[in-house]
Amino acid sequence: MLKRYSLLLAAALLASHLAPAQTPAAEPKPLLGFDASGAAAQYQLEAQFDAQLKTDNLRDWMKRMASRPHHVGSPHGKDNAEFMAGLFKSWGYDTRIDVSYVLFPTPKLRVLEMVAPTQFKASLTEKPLAEDATSGLTAEQLPTYNCFSKDGDVTAELVFVNYGVPKNYEELERRGINVKGKIVIAKYGGAWRGIKSKVAAEKGAIGCLIYSDPKDDGYWQGDVYPKGAFKPESGAQRGSVLDMPTYPGDPLTPGYGSTKNAKRLDYKKAPTLTQIPVLPISYGDAQPLLAALAGPMAPEAWRGALPISYHLGPGPAKVHLQLAFNWKTEPVYNVIATLKGNLYPDQWVMRGNHHDAWVNGASDPLSGLVALMEEARVAGELAKTGWRPKRTLMFCAWDGEEPGLLGSTEWAETNAKQLQKNVVAYLNTDNSERGFLFASGSHTLEKFFNQVARDVTDPQKNISISDRRRAYDLINGSPEAQKDARDRADLRIGALGAGSDYSPYIQHLGIPSMNVGFGGEGEGGEYHSIYDSFDHFTRFKDPNFAYCKVLAQTMGRAALRLVNADVLPFEFQNFSNTVAKYGTEVKQLADNMRIETEKQTRLLAEKRYEAVADPTETLLPPKAHEAVPYLNFSPLDNALLKLEQSAQTYALVRKGNPSLTAARKRELDQLLYQAEQQLLSTEGLPRRPWYRHQIYAPGFYTGYGVKTLPGIREAVEERKWAEADEQIKRTAAAVERFAGQVSRAAAVASSPPAQ
Amino acid sequence: MLKRYSLLLAAALLASHLAPAQTPAAEPKPLLGFDASGAAAQYQLEAQFDAQLKTDNLRDWMKRMASRPHHVGSPHGKDNAEFMAGLFKSWGYDTRIDVSYVLFPTPKLRVLEMVAPTQFKASLTEKPLAEDATSGLTAEQLPTYNCFSKDGDVTAELVFVNYGVPKNYEELERRGINVKGKIVIAKYGGAWRGIKSKVAAEKGAIGCLIYSDPKDDGYWQGDVYPKGAFKPESGAQRGSVLDMPTYPGDPLTPGYGSTKNAKRLDYKKAPTLTQIPVLPISYGDAQPLLAALAGPMAPEAWRGALPISYHLGPGPAKVHLQLAFNWKTEPVYNVIATLKGNLYPDQWVMRGNHHDAWVNGASDPLSGLVALMEEARVAGELAKTGWRPKRTLMFCAWDGEEPGLLGSTEWAETNAKQLQKNVVAYLNTDNSERGFLFASGSHTLEKFFNQVARDVTDPQKNISISDRRRAYDLINGSPEAQKDARDRADLRIGALGAGSDYSPYIQHLGIPSMNVGFGGEGEGGEYHSIYDSFDHFTRFKDPNFAYCKVLAQTMGRAALRLVNADVLPFEFQNFSNTVAKYGTEVKQLADNMRIETEKQTRLLAEKRYEAVADPTETLLPPKAHEAVPYLNFSPLDNALLKLEQSAQTYALVRKGNPSLTAARKRELDQLLYQAEQQLLSTEGLPRRPWYRHQIYAPGFYTGYGVKTLPGIREAVEERKWAEADEQIKRTAAAVERFAGQVSRAAAVASSPPAQ
Repeated sequence: MLKRYSLLLAAALLASHLAPAQTPAAEPKPLLGFDASGAAAQYQLEAQFDAQLKTDNLRDWMKRMASRPHHVGSPHGKDNAEFMAGLFKSWGYDTRIDVSYVLFPTPKLRVLEMVAPTQFKASLTEKPLAEDATSGLTAEQLPTYNCFSKDGDVTAELVFVNYGVPKNYEELERRGINVKGKIVIAKYGGAWRGIKSKVAAEKGAIGCLIYSDPKDDGYWQGDVYPKGAFKPESGAQRGSVLDMPTYPGDPLTPGYGSTKNAKRLDYKKAPTLTQIPVLPISYGDAQPLLAALAGPMAPEAWRGALPISYHLGPGPAKVHLQLAFNWKTEPVYNVIATLKGNLYPDQWVMRGNHHDAWVNGASDPLSGLVALMEEARVAGELAKTGWRPKRTLMFCAWDGEEPGLLGSTEWAETNAKQLQKNVVAYLNTDNSERGFLFASGSHTLEKFFNQVARDVTDPQKNISISDRRRAYDLINGSPEAQKDARDRADLRIGALGAGSDYSPYIQHLGIPSMNVGFGGEGEGGEYHSIYDSFDHFTRFKDPNFAYCKVLAQTMGRAALRLVNADVLPFEFQNFSNTVAKYGTEVKQLADNMRIETEKQTRLLAEKRYEAVADPTETLLPPKAHEAVPYLNFSPLDNALLKLEQSAQTYALVRKGNPSLTAARKRELDQLLYQAEQQLLSTEGLPRRPWYRHQIYAPGFYTGYGVKTLPGIREAVEERKWAEADEQIKRTAAAVERFAGQVSRAAAVASSPPAQ
Repeated sequence: MLKRYSLLLAAALLASHLAPAQTPAAEPKPLLGFDASGAAAQYQLEAQFDAQLKTDNLRDWMKRMASRPHHVGSPHGKDNAEFMAGLFKSWGYDTRIDVSYVLFPTPKLRVLEMVAPTQFKASLTEKPLAEDATSGLTAEQLPTYNCFSKDGDVTAELVFVNYGVPKNYEELERRGINVKGKIVIAKYGGAWRGIKSKVAAEKGAIGCLIYSDPKDDGYWQGDVYPKGAFKPESGAQRGSVLDMPTYPGDPLTPGYGSTKNAKRLDYKKAPTLTQIPVLPISYGDAQPLLAALAGPMAPEAWRGALPISYHLGPGPAKVHLQLAFNWKTEPVYNVIATLKGNLYPDQWVMRGNHHDAWVNGASDPLSGLVALMEEARVAGELAKTGWRPKRTLMFCAWDGEEPGLLGSTEWAETNAKQLQKNVVAYLNTDNSERGFLFASGSHTLEKFFNQVARDVTDPQKNISISDRRRAYDLINGSPEAQKDARDRADLRIGALGAGSDYSPYIQHLGIPSMNVGFGGEGEGGEYHSIYDSFDHFTRFKDPNFAYCKVLAQTMGRAALRLVNADVLPFEFQNFSNTVAKYGTEVKQLADNMRIETEKQTRLLAEKRYEAVADPTETLLPPKAHEAVPYLNFSPLDNALLKLEQSAQTYALVRKGNPSLTAARKRELDQLLYQAEQQLLSTEGLPRRPWYRHQIYAPGFYTGYGVKTLPGIREAVEERKWAEADEQIKRTAAAVERFAGQVSRAAAVASSPPAQ
């Protein structure tokens, strides 16, 4: 019985789930924001769009733009900006290059040497390879360094701190190890790199090394470059250590644009620079240092793939680290190309990707940027043959993303008011490769984006990118993701933390944003090294640019639907569900902490830790915590109820689909796209007012990693109970404002039909 | 409120849980099998026993016996046996050396070389160390080999198979890799080594290498010997690959004693020899072979700590493996020392540990053996000063354990009838070290053993070994173990699989057995290598022999209580709980398999695996399985109910504690200790009739690892549904027989009091 049932069910599902993505058909599927005839026309437009995408352009542009290093301030970076501006103009866009002036330190002196118990001098140099055409352009390459490290000259014993996150220091403390006055060596990974130096400094370390363990992206993952895709012995990861969780962008102009004559902080007082010198190194340079450590063995989860016994130290390895930087101001060139809408020219749909790289940057950022360029080209072609977008379509190629979202943040801060008034949505991409769809963003766009993903066909399988991602979740997902993939009509999109240029738009300005890419089947340890090259990309990331093209299809569709929609395709029930889920999570977090704290308090009182401890080793009991109080979540629960009701009302009204006057539509659109701004709080998050969104933020101690309901969640995680209660109220107020705006939108949407 | 509650509760627990183990006190705690005055006397005896234990003896005997290699057939092995026999005699024991004659192959020729793509000849030699006094006795050492490998001369491409268990071959098959006609290389660990060659042969491989990855016991775990305790580059693990899950003991005399003139199988037809040649190698020898493999990357969980990319092959590495053995028969010397009981001389309490080693064997087996010897010495001393055991106390030092429990099995088979008639319990130890109590055995002894553990003080902490183990479970245990440690009065003892000399006693003869040791704080990669030496042991395992001594206290107490008890301290409610728990587990296993199979069937029908697969790699969908039927567990449930009732009745009767006549006591004792025999089935387990216990057996595909309710569990695991139903009935019948015997015991125990 069971078996027959399963097979029948499966057959039905096959029919419903695995049909190829549909391009225009006799009876097109409904499209959020369009009526039937509008949807048919839109599908036809998208078919034309797809038909004109040229893979050769993607390849040619990547090859040209990746041919030389193009970091901030480099000649080739400026040349790339001008090259793009020329193309955009030739495609019919109103194009300009907006310049900001930002602090951009580059290395003047880098010394790392072991002075005891033996001598060793780190090479700090990535080896060019004959098999990689651009790896030898040494004169133009930035050396390996962490941008926005402070200057310093320190000598001290070394301590191995795993990924260097706060939890790791707790484990060290239980082993009696304090990093005060020491230099720490942390592995890359586990959290954004800037967290490592920030936490190390908080703990009293005087210097910080960050190395790439071969377990994480070297030989343990696969053959190393050039035989395979992974990090060779001399490879090191450049990258910013600006304290972006406090604020991104130019550290000297917090919260306002770094125009030529803007008032600037003294760089020595800028709060987002590191407090200690920091340097990234290769595993070739790290191995002798780590091998010279004694002291207790590192916990098992900390050990990497070097052929050594990983000890914690401190010492006897003692290192000398000396760093000095050129503290220069450089121009960053944001290329802005505009195609004016013919019905709602004041409603802007922005599409962006950065253009600066750490070195040649084929994957990061060009794999996403060339897709954006091809989208712009084809949209321009369509406009030349008669089509015009209803809303204004803008393409933005940002400079200075790598050092700290400098270009996008300064542009956002400079134009803040106008952007909050006009921007409908910001659609971001960055590096992308062969594999599966990964999408994050405002959940008011989740249903809209699911329709986009439903309508794009995966280039390797004859199914939609949505179905391929659903299959991935069903097979590789967490139990929760598996359940969602079975039971939920829409794929869940992730929440936005930090890590690319969407950050100022969503978190500072409250503009609905998305970030999209493909991944999981490319391979590599090339990230932010001289090996992120055209040669590497075309061997290991997306050899025939099929996924660059499908990225253009996806983001092009998203942009075209947004600019053409009759009414903007925002939807609030998915958002309401999602925020309710976050609410459940933070309550569960507090409850679990309460249970764990009680358990630990009891084990401490019973002296169980002492009973277990090996007397030949140091393992102190964990620190005692106060009991976790019950928090008052009722303001949040009440706000979530209002949100649910308003979302339901809006959905019902829209289902009724009354026709509206042009003026009503314009009014409705504005209420819809500005709803996200209701989620901002004036005060911003505790200790980082730049971040104003009460639903999404990068974690203060995770960096890239998003924290949802960040005010509440981080207060709970850090056991700040009064602050948690305060943040529950503040978040609830934001959700109530949002629900109010959705109710207003529902009222406008249900106003008497057009005469 | 909460906090105060926790602290109060904790204070109460402190008082109850963490008091030092009690030696005789004014009001002794109740002792199972003794009345109050008997318990007081027993406590007094145990105090005398403890007082006479001498650490120096433990050290001196280990040093002497580990001074030269003492494997089967070696001069020092025979000498050790005679040395012990002399001691036992001097302590007043009736002592004899029983000899069996067993097949014991040793290497005549060992060749391992890589013939393509490059040439490499494996050294197959462990390096002597200046820091280790006995490592250089090369002439007397057995070379590194797997005992009971067949002869062979094979050349083929190599395939890496992780731990070489059946699941690993399923993963290889999904990657399109078949080992037919290949030589496999497996890591040590994950399952008993004999499983690796057995499964490899079943899958069609023609040769098998087993190496010690540094992740498992080399530098990844800690500094290598002699700097630290772990396996150096040339270290290799000797060991038996006899198919012990089919039957242990001399492969030529299955099920009967290998006396001098016993009928023997032709060794070429012995079913427990391997089907293919097998050789253990060091990681120094393995690295060039593994580094020369190409093909897909091994799954992440398979990768070790060598500084290479772990590929699966097959090839291009091609190896030549040639092995030839001397197929000799050797005498094995079991030393049997007896102290006759004065009240029930026909009730025997056996205490055993093996004396043969692979090389010098300080840890394995001498760390347990010297404890046994000291127990015997002190019991002998006590007997000289007037005390006599009520029951007969026997000390057994087995030979030939390492090649396949040869000594203990042949002795058990030779004396089977008498042992089943007379033996009350068999108490085994083997290697032991600093750390926590680990105990496994018949659950009819669980409560008894908990009282022993309650009364022995940990030498590093002023608490009982039971409380220290409970603290371990509370902090390091699985969620289930943590819950048990909180809620359950008794520590759970484990179930016995294989791995030491208890196997024939419990699994073949149905004699209640226990195996006990300490561990978790010793360190080492010396197992079965030339580095298992007195020097290594006294630096890394138990430097001051404190845990050897506490092992003697523990096992001495257990033996003294068993020989002295008024009525044997068997208890059946813990056993009943435990078997009911196993019943729940096998039902859960079938239910989970049903859910997983349904899920997979659906994913297969929907072609989700194809949707996810990377087209540039081979990853076939998993094999389809038939739906899992509902099994009829009612016979087992009904039997468990009877068991629960009989156990309860017996407990109630014993709580009433009627005084019994001597004859009744004798009758009761015999019912109690022979109850375990009711759990044997005449037919034995499917395809391995030697294993007759229906509750405990080593896994057919795990080796050491125990399978509880093995007939049912393995049938379910292997999806043999008809066999599962059959085994449910057979197991239920055994449980019913057992319950019947317990009821009879209850009846005898409640017979009219002695006049």
